[in-house]
Amino acid sequence: MFKDATVAEINTIMEKAWKTFHVYRKFSLKQRAAFMRAIAAGLDNPPDELIPTVMRETNLPEARVRNEKTRTVFQLTSYADACERGEWLEARIDTANPERTPLPKPDIRKMLVPLGPVVVYGASNFPFAYSTAGGDTACALAAGCPVIVKAHPAHPETSDIVAKIILKAAAETGMPDGIFAHVHATSFEIGKALVMHPYTKAVGFTGSYTGGRALFDWANQRKEPIPVFSEMGSINPVFLLPGKLEQAAADIAKMYAGSITLGVGQFCTNPGLIIGIESAPLQEFITALGNEIRQIAPGTMLHPGIAKTYGEKKSTALAQEDVTTVAESATAPAANQGVPAIASASGKAFLNNPVLHQEVFGPYSLVIRCADEAELLKVTQHLEGQLTATLMATEQDMLGHDELVEAVKNICGRFILNSVPTGVEVCLAMHHGGPFPASTDSRFTSVGADGIKRFARPVAFQGWPDSLLPEELKNDNPLGIWRTVNNEVTKKSI
Amino acid sequence: MFKDATVAEINTIMEKAWKTFHVYRKFSLKQRAAFMRAIAAGLDNPPDELIPTVMRETNLPEARVRNEKTRTVFQLTSYADACERGEWLEARIDTANPERTPLPKPDIRKMLVPLGPVVVYGASNFPFAYSTAGGDTACALAAGCPVIVKAHPAHPETSDIVAKIILKAAAETGMPDGIFAHVHATSFEIGKALVMHPYTKAVGFTGSYTGGRALFDWANQRKEPIPVFSEMGSINPVFLLPGKLEQAAADIAKMYAGSITLGVGQFCTNPGLIIGIESAPLQEFITALGNEIRQIAPGTMLHPGIAKTYGEKKSTALAQEDVTTVAESATAPAANQGVPAIASASGKAFLNNPVLHQEVFGPYSLVIRCADEAELLKVTQHLEGQLTATLMATEQDMLGHDELVEAVKNICGRFILNSVPTGVEVCLAMHHGGPFPASTDSRFTSVGADGIKRFARPVAFQGWPDSLLPEELKNDNPLGIWRTVNNEVTKKSI
Repeated sequence: MFKDATVAEINTIMEKAWKTFHVYRKFSLKQRAAFMRAIAAGLDNPPDELIPTVMRETNLPEARVRNEKTRTVFQLTSYADACERGEWLEARIDTANPERTPLPKPDIRKMLVPLGPVVVYGASNFPFAYSTAGGDTACALAAGCPVIVKAHPAHPETSDIVAKIILKAAAETGMPDGIFAHVHATSFEIGKALVMHPYTKAVGFTGSYTGGRALFDWANQRKEPIPVFSEMGSINPVFLLPGKLEQAAADIAKMYAGSITLGVGQFCTNPGLIIGIESAPLQEFITALGNEIRQIAPGTMLHPGIAKTYGEKKSTALAQEDVTTVAESATAPAANQGVPAIASASGKAFLNNPVLHQEVFGPYSLVIRCADEAELLKVTQHLEGQLTATLMATEQDMLGHDELVEAVKNICGRFILNSVPTGVEVCLAMHHGGPFPASTDSRFTSVGADGIKRFARPVAFQGWPDSLLPEELKNDNPLGIWRTVNNEVTKKSI
Repeated sequence: MFKDATVAEINTIMEKAWKTFHVYRKFSLKQRAAFMRAIAAGLDNPPDELIPTVMRETNLPEARVRNEKTRTVFQLTSYADACERGEWLEARIDTANPERTPLPKPDIRKMLVPLGPVVVYGASNFPFAYSTAGGDTACALAAGCPVIVKAHPAHPETSDIVAKIILKAAAETGMPDGIFAHVHATSFEIGKALVMHPYTKAVGFTGSYTGGRALFDWANQRKEPIPVFSEMGSINPVFLLPGKLEQAAADIAKMYAGSITLGVGQFCTNPGLIIGIESAPLQEFITALGNEIRQIAPGTMLHPGIAKTYGEKKSTALAQEDVTTVAESATAPAANQGVPAIASASGKAFLNNPVLHQEVFGPYSLVIRCADEAELLKVTQHLEGQLTATLMATEQDMLGHDELVEAVKNICGRFILNSVPTGVEVCLAMHHGGPFPASTDSRFTSVGADGIKRFARPVAFQGWPDSLLPEELKNDNPLGIWRTVNNEVTKKSI
């Protein structure tokens, strides 16, 4: 239905984005925020066909689609608020001291400025929140960067409708032509052309390891490498500590059956690995989890490709030596449905088999039975970087497992206690990222307003008179933002 | 005199650093700062042989060596202060709301934690400030990372003495064994082994484009890529605007003759390119600069390799079509001395010849004569990323050249008005970095306490009881640090 963009079209789009960058970067925080709020308003009152289109393209149920739309509106408005508050600018001022010896001290003031045009690759599992008007787009616009979205081929019509909402909001709020562009592409060639274009200055991606790593590698092979933030998912280990497990094995099983199968398991924070120490309570947990899973019906997955890959990856995982299938859903699946499944293996098997460390994207989780506490620690130390890690633990468990707690902290971006990893709160304290391979740069997040900083860099102004400085750095602080002046955090004027 | 480390020795060092990481990362900000201050104290009262050794190994004059030592002591103590103040932790707290519908809001709190062992490659031109106990080491220790320094082969004895000062300070302040290691290596193989080791989690480098890019490429080819901050120098363009030039051509020439030849031009912020519009005042400037340069005697360079490369690169630059030698020092050079030189070329020549964009590390600068304002803008738009850019301009010049000012801002990390780029102030508002190829990541700095953030990443704690949270995130804010609580910047307790 949608034709792939050509390389010539990409060139035209990027040249326009580059020109626009020089206009938009000078727009005030207020103007950027107004644009973002206009997109939010448009998405909040979309054309009638939007919700049915998403449902048809993604197989997601209406409630889930509407919730995600609400979340996306909240992202846009809350990042617009953060954009205006201006803490993300990291404004720093060190005033001059002409009397200093041996050399006078110059006046130096620093703030973040935008990187340039940002290419965003839409995600299959979040048609709103991590696609066209999603978190990456909102962060880039707040930073002062034009955005080029490559629509995910699984929901091109949805993406097209949202793109039109963005373009309408741009026109309404007086944005320069070229502030936003929308590209369809199913070919590898066009995906690569976007990241390799010299006017592309940063990339945002949410999706598979293969896709995210390819973008990262291309970006680093450029004559001028550019930052790529790829959020590539993970297996989100859950650690069942003995005290807690003894208290609540059945309750934990029930909670986790829900988390594992939520949205047919199609979340990057899906708990794909549950780790405990071989014991009667662990067996009780496994049995209870199996019983829960049998009762949960298969659900239709986002698209046939994802359903096919889930089936294959699950089969591969279940076929590994020493892996036992604990339970599968008792309901027979229809076409393109993902069958919930739980498997189990020993700690030794997990340590010896890298296949068991791989994400199985869908309603699947593997329970690892460690021989003892030493093996539990060893398993933890052999885990790759993760978006999240969860401890189910009493306070006593925590105090008695300091080394384990530190080892877990060292591999994850978000560390959850006594809850589930699914559900990523949109707030400033959120961190959605994590050590490689969870993301390509553990120092940045794709959820929360700190994500704006992915697309901005500092510039220091030395010896500028007040009249010529940007508003953010002027003596009387006309924008009323927080700044660090001579090492003191303050809103005061100078 | 010093033997290269072997790959087996590197393995042993990295295994020790990895073990130490798990101890040191739990050390309080106060403990880290105490260690850094002890290093500063040791460097401030060094063994008698230190200064003569540096002078012998680097050919730097005593005053310069002593100033750099003072600067390095200041870096260590001021970053220790910043470490303790804790703003760099970016502590964020979003408190729970159990009543929120449809889902309760969890408590989420975030702060930065260290990445892991950091490998620092010593710089040839800063035997103290960007070598063994230099800025990268100070930042990594503040972040909570063990440090492995590869001594620069041009000053191995200096590096060895400083390493002993660090190890003594570590023992005095109760640091774990393995917090710091010192490696000699002249071979490519060992330099690469350090960056490729799986326990290396970040790299700091100051030096040439070739070296910095090689480290960056290796790091990205790892199974688990790691962040590399390479500061690779630049040509630091200086723009002479018409109004200012008319007022002060001779004064600017005198100021720049000093900046170009300071330290025999061996600074990454050396002004290697001066750009103006063809005019009588520009000719006056060129003549005056030539006259100044003739009077400045050649100086001995850091080591024979640098002197040789300077001679070759200068010859290559001067041999380019349409490049005219304006002046060279009238004094004949001794062995390993760098001869100050000024050349000139048209804007057109610069636009057409990439050789003229390359750094000539030493006391050399090229003056570009643009035909008109349009060509000046075009030259600016064709410049690569730069550590610094400088405008010599009146307020009227600035107001009349908005497009040029924005174009300059877009390529540099530090934007200087009516001064010289040499001299990098150590303060929080400093930015020492810049778009590629000035550095490998324009979002980070290697000077100023914000450089700590190169070596740290956020972790979000979700649903943790107050008693188990790190001190930095506890309700009553026992460390008294600035935090953002429910989007409000505050030191208040909760």
